[in-house]
Amino acid sequence: MDELVGQVRGGNRRALARAITRVERSDAAAQELVAALYAHTGNAHVVGVTGSPGSGKSTLVNELAKAFRQQDRLVAIVAVDPSSPFSGGALLGDRIRMRDLSGDTGIFIRSMASRGSLGGLARATAAVVKLLDAAGFDVILVETVGAGQAEVDIANMAHTTLVVEAPGMGDDIQSIKAGILEIADVLVVNKADRPGAGNTVKVLRMMLHMGQGSTVRHHGQMLEAPAGGAPAAATDGADAWTVRVYETVATSGEGVEAVVEAIERHREHLQTTGKWAERERDRSRHEIAQLLQARLMAQLEDEVPAEERERLIAAVASREIDPYAAVDLLFRRVTLAAPHQS
Amino acid sequence: MDELVGQVRGGNRRALARAITRVERSDAAAQELVAALYAHTGNAHVVGVTGSPGSGKSTLVNELAKAFRQQDRLVAIVAVDPSSPFSGGALLGDRIRMRDLSGDTGIFIRSMASRGSLGGLARATAAVVKLLDAAGFDVILVETVGAGQAEVDIANMAHTTLVVEAPGMGDDIQSIKAGILEIADVLVVNKADRPGAGNTVKVLRMMLHMGQGSTVRHHGQMLEAPAGGAPAAATDGADAWTVRVYETVATSGEGVEAVVEAIERHREHLQTTGKWAERERDRSRHEIAQLLQARLMAQLEDEVPAEERERLIAAVASREIDPYAAVDLLFRRVTLAAPHQS
Repeated sequence: MDELVGQVRGGNRRALARAITRVERSDAAAQELVAALYAHTGNAHVVGVTGSPGSGKSTLVNELAKAFRQQDRLVAIVAVDPSSPFSGGALLGDRIRMRDLSGDTGIFIRSMASRGSLGGLARATAAVVKLLDAAGFDVILVETVGAGQAEVDIANMAHTTLVVEAPGMGDDIQSIKAGILEIADVLVVNKADRPGAGNTVKVLRMMLHMGQGSTVRHHGQMLEAPAGGAPAAATDGADAWTVRVYETVATSGEGVEAVVEAIERHREHLQTTGKWAERERDRSRHEIAQLLQARLMAQLEDEVPAEERERLIAAVASREIDPYAAVDLLFRRVTLAAPHQS
Repeated sequence: MDELVGQVRGGNRRALARAITRVERSDAAAQELVAALYAHTGNAHVVGVTGSPGSGKSTLVNELAKAFRQQDRLVAIVAVDPSSPFSGGALLGDRIRMRDLSGDTGIFIRSMASRGSLGGLARATAAVVKLLDAAGFDVILVETVGAGQAEVDIANMAHTTLVVEAPGMGDDIQSIKAGILEIADVLVVNKADRPGAGNTVKVLRMMLHMGQGSTVRHHGQMLEAPAGGAPAAATDGADAWTVRVYETVATSGEGVEAVVEAIERHREHLQTTGKWAERERDRSRHEIAQLLQARLMAQLEDEVPAEERERLIAAVASREIDPYAAVDLLFRRVTLAAPHQS
């Protein structure tokens, strides 16, 4: 274990891959590895990339990785596929990607597919990002399918969030998810050589214009930030970041340079305004909430035998007791069983 | 309160609207109302409808509501918009819809927008579905934007899940979300009069064919069902439900009748095979897990002052302590503070 930690910090790729596999397999391993490496994290720029299926975001991520490599940065790509818990969807994209980027030892690629629960995937992804950070990667690109909670989870994990759209998705305001305004730091219309691209750009700019001043960053789900915190700072005129729309053709590399510059500018913006530390707090807030919930569920599974849990679930399903009463019972069992030495 | 409960059960629409508003405003009100009404639920057929933005699913939901009305069923529509926590996006669609369906007192419509957390929205939606069930609605259509966790939440809430697609979303397998195979009971290609519809249908049928035998229903996130439960039953030959693809043009009503028949057939299938009870247990399992998490967070906010939580978050953000150690501390505080009389 100590040896593995040392190897990960030393940049040993095989040790890193092994550590990631452990983290994916169990929360206990994630806890042990992250606890040992956490003090050495905090240097990487974590960039979330999200977008609709078909927006070409994987190709764009590859191009971004190549561009960062030309600046001699060490780049890690974490491709998260929460949309299909049971199929091996992530692996297909991975193979295509490997062919494109293999041969450059400065790029590390890992795909992660959900194994039954989105919460477990989010926790594992957060832990993997820390391992990569501790291993010395300068830029960590976390890519996910644009999909509700997964999108928000990625935004909560990242310093900078790119949202990728493609033309021809209906080309009206209703067809573009309103939520992207809340999470995007940089907007990209990829496949900009396709018909309708100009219209998509126009619609996005209009939406940005309408949303000005009301953009509030989404915080950890249940541990809310105190009122008057980040949102106030975000609308502070001089310190404000302006979200812009960029056009790219990732397959030819067109426009990628400008996106890389925007990502760099956003990092500088965060650092010079003190918002980098603010985002670090938001990330911690979100992560603590997630880990607490996982902890509660683990404790519940330890304390209340499966048969008893099933009996209670059946009683709720048959309307013998209401779900709130069942939760009262379970919560009491968990808290009573907890160790009471202070 | 008792009066409100009586009025809701009696089918008083204004009382129902008032009760829903209370449920949306606080978990405490939801608990009180659901506890009082829960024994009177279990009669409604809950149908989840999810689909990409631009698939025309709201129009389809309206047409389904009209068709169920022609069979003299009481119909409720709950339109859930998790994509935009801060804008009033849900209200726009609501106004358009009201114009189309108003005048029929057998249809009740309610829009719900997320107010900061997806978890809170899912809890409120589950409670609202119960109020509508207790109020005597036969069919409850729960509509949401096709988006990762929200989609799964709806599927966990529903007896029958419709997934709506539209042609021209890229028309290749990668552009169609793989996850729909896991949640769809009925697949609909709407806007079937548009170019490319035939191809979309073909791709979906191919995906269904490839996915045969591996389809496993998604269970409650953290309270997993025991091994050998529902998944085994789902692949049991004679009892198996075959997911089919239907084509509709919701704006003209074309094909809607066949979708209504499929929904009805699915209900009969669930009832005759004993899977209705199985889905009720899955719903309860999922709901208990959600409520337990909310309970933990509420207790945490009661027991640990906001300033102290913020100090701990800042310590994690600055790498003074690791997130797991912080969670240990908080979890101990919550469980120690819990009432210890048995």
